Amino acid sequence: MQADDIDDTVKRIAGHRGVLGVIIAARDGMPIKTTMDNTSTVLYVGTAIALFERSQSLVRDVDPSNALQFMRIRTAKYELMVSVEEEYIVVAVQNTKFTE
Amino acid sequence: MQADDIDDTVKRIAGHRGVLGVIIAARDGMPIKTTMDNTSTVLYVGTAIALFERSQSLVRDVDPSNALQFMRIRTAKYELMVSVEEEYIVVAVQNTKFTE
Repeated sequence: MQADDIDDTVKRIAGHRGVLGVIIAARDGMPIKTTMDNTSTVLYVGTAIALFERSQSLVRDVDPSNALQFMRIRTAKYELMVSVEEEYIVVAVQNTKFTE
Repeated sequence: MQADDIDDTVKRIAGHRGVLGVIIAARDGMPIKTTMDNTSTVLYVGTAIALFERSQSLVRDVDPSNALQFMRIRTAKYELMVSVEEEYIVVAVQNTKFTE
């Protein structure tokens, strides 16, 4: 993803109703672009990567030829969307009042 | 959930486009109602419960007062929706060609 694409992606997702924050990070968790403060950024990226990796390993346990692409979890306090691409992880945090 | 509610829930979810199967199980994984064969039912309920429990513990690690309510994961081969209520777990398996 080029720098412009990263900005466009963040702007596009951040524009959705109820989105509290958008983070694009490298696959190791190093934030590249964020709309959140540092503490929240580190917290949500860490949670997203841990969630994704635990679920990925489980999906692969069942079928090694399968791969996890996207996760959406709703908790009592927020909704988290996690999408993993080749080199990046995209995390969006949404207010549960605005979700489907 | 009464027996009628269980049947209605299964019929309602099974009616959505691309839904491959719907399973309602007790929280320990014992299937109560399923539209799938036994092997698939056991496989998807097991995967759903393991996913949910791993993610729940992670959400609670971050914030003990929070709780996981719903999960949607998209893999290369299927999409899995997992909703946990008081005594039941509801699992829907969807063909990825029909998802958002």
